[in-house]
Amino acid sequence: MEDFLVNINGTLLKGPEAKISVFDRGFLYGDSVYEATRTFNKRPFRIDQHIDRLFLSAEKISLEPTYSKEVILSEVLKTIEAAPFKDATIRIVLTRGTNSDLGLDPALSGPNNLVVFTKEIKPNPAWWITDGVSMIFFQKKIEASGSLPKTGNYQENILANREATSRGAYDSFMINTHGHVTEGTTSNAWVIKNNILFTPPLADGVLDGLTRKALLEMAKRQMLPLPLVEKSLTKDDFLSADECFITSTTRNVVPVTKIESHLIGNGKPGALTLKLLELYLEFVK
Amino acid sequence: MEDFLVNINGTLLKGPEAKISVFDRGFLYGDSVYEATRTFNKRPFRIDQHIDRLFLSAEKISLEPTYSKEVILSEVLKTIEAAPFKDATIRIVLTRGTNSDLGLDPALSGPNNLVVFTKEIKPNPAWWITDGVSMIFFQKKIEASGSLPKTGNYQENILANREATSRGAYDSFMINTHGHVTEGTTSNAWVIKNNILFTPPLADGVLDGLTRKALLEMAKRQMLPLPLVEKSLTKDDFLSADECFITSTTRNVVPVTKIESHLIGNGKPGALTLKLLELYLEFVK
Repeated sequence: MEDFLVNINGTLLKGPEAKISVFDRGFLYGDSVYEATRTFNKRPFRIDQHIDRLFLSAEKISLEPTYSKEVILSEVLKTIEAAPFKDATIRIVLTRGTNSDLGLDPALSGPNNLVVFTKEIKPNPAWWITDGVSMIFFQKKIEASGSLPKTGNYQENILANREATSRGAYDSFMINTHGHVTEGTTSNAWVIKNNILFTPPLADGVLDGLTRKALLEMAKRQMLPLPLVEKSLTKDDFLSADECFITSTTRNVVPVTKIESHLIGNGKPGALTLKLLELYLEFVK
Repeated sequence: MEDFLVNINGTLLKGPEAKISVFDRGFLYGDSVYEATRTFNKRPFRIDQHIDRLFLSAEKISLEPTYSKEVILSEVLKTIEAAPFKDATIRIVLTRGTNSDLGLDPALSGPNNLVVFTKEIKPNPAWWITDGVSMIFFQKKIEASGSLPKTGNYQENILANREATSRGAYDSFMINTHGHVTEGTTSNAWVIKNNILFTPPLADGVLDGLTRKALLEMAKRQMLPLPLVEKSLTKDDFLSADECFITSTTRNVVPVTKIESHLIGNGKPGALTLKLLELYLEFVK
């Protein structure tokens, strides 16, 4: 955390000095929403969309923002400006506020706490592109339909990630209670089969990822070399795919070459996946 | 929070000064476990059972304690000793620790953070006993079986509580994905019908509450004026009950006299419920 600059309710602090009340509802109950994005050369990527989505997440958990979108934007820009990083990760956390007493009732809470984290972004490890990453499947217990809010309740995703790393994999593809593959723990999921690109629909309980959104937009503008279909997908669809990858705002496009003990395609990053990465980077820059 | 004394990793602080790193995993992801108990005249209620259960919750989310039970106990006792309260609430929060970087991988984390909150306990409002409280039903989306861990992922319970208060009720009875009533958002649920006392089994996804446990123990020792049966219960079982109540360590036994728009019994706290409250208070004191 030494390499972070943190903004708490407008005050800029070095990572190790950035502290919040233990009565903050984010700390007590995970009662917060968040967004993660990045900058390219000091310019935040699709920041308005991220702040809009932060407010959508807040609405889904009935968290009434006491910060306006404009003030959040200006605090994010202030943090980026003050930090010495050109390419940086940005995390925005908005909690319901600091409680006057222990208790679930939101009426116990004061105004929101806003925390913005930033640090220099590391390039993706080279082996992600040369070898690809491996995934496992993880059965979710939380029944979810529709696009998910991004909240401070991340226990299930932590378990899914922990299960993966303990079995030597990079991450988990999560399976919803209806048996459909939804997403990684912090990424969206994609497969290519017979020259068609597939990704699960939001209705399956999928995060409305902004890289996912950008690829959908590129497809609409006929900027992709293959058709894109949103469709519920099973484990078998993933295991029998020609290519597979994940996307996230901070990691862009990452090839997946193994799921459980099963190699995807020939076990090397797919040619179409690498082409999509190249097109995506051109598109966002 | 002005009236709290807080112990953070051994340091005693007044409530408003009690702060934790924003890199704490409890704050970032709700990645923590907790217990709530109380003191009677400076003596903590069943503290060994609470600390045992804290460790069971930790095990369920693969949180490896870096604090021993003995050290946690001694920090709790130190906090109680230092505070000027005879009868006090105690909340123990154990987080997975402070992350060196943003990310789900538990390997990013340092040792646990231990936070103990205490403040003087308020007597239950008198109307809880004269009039009873009202409840609504709330459908859970998290599929749960077996006794639940107490974690910092409390979003669903917050929504359930908020739904209740927004509709003028005290709290919600939560319904699991199989249609069984499980518990309140921070309490266990009970009904009396034809002179038999019923409570849902842990297998339905119920918190193994210590007041619940005490009543089961009293039943075993034949200290209750009626038989006690653990059994899956439906909404109808609650709506058609002769009496209904909730239990929690800090609130003891609280009569429920209305569920949704339906009066329970004659709409006044039941005679057996009030008898159970009396017997319970004798038992624990």
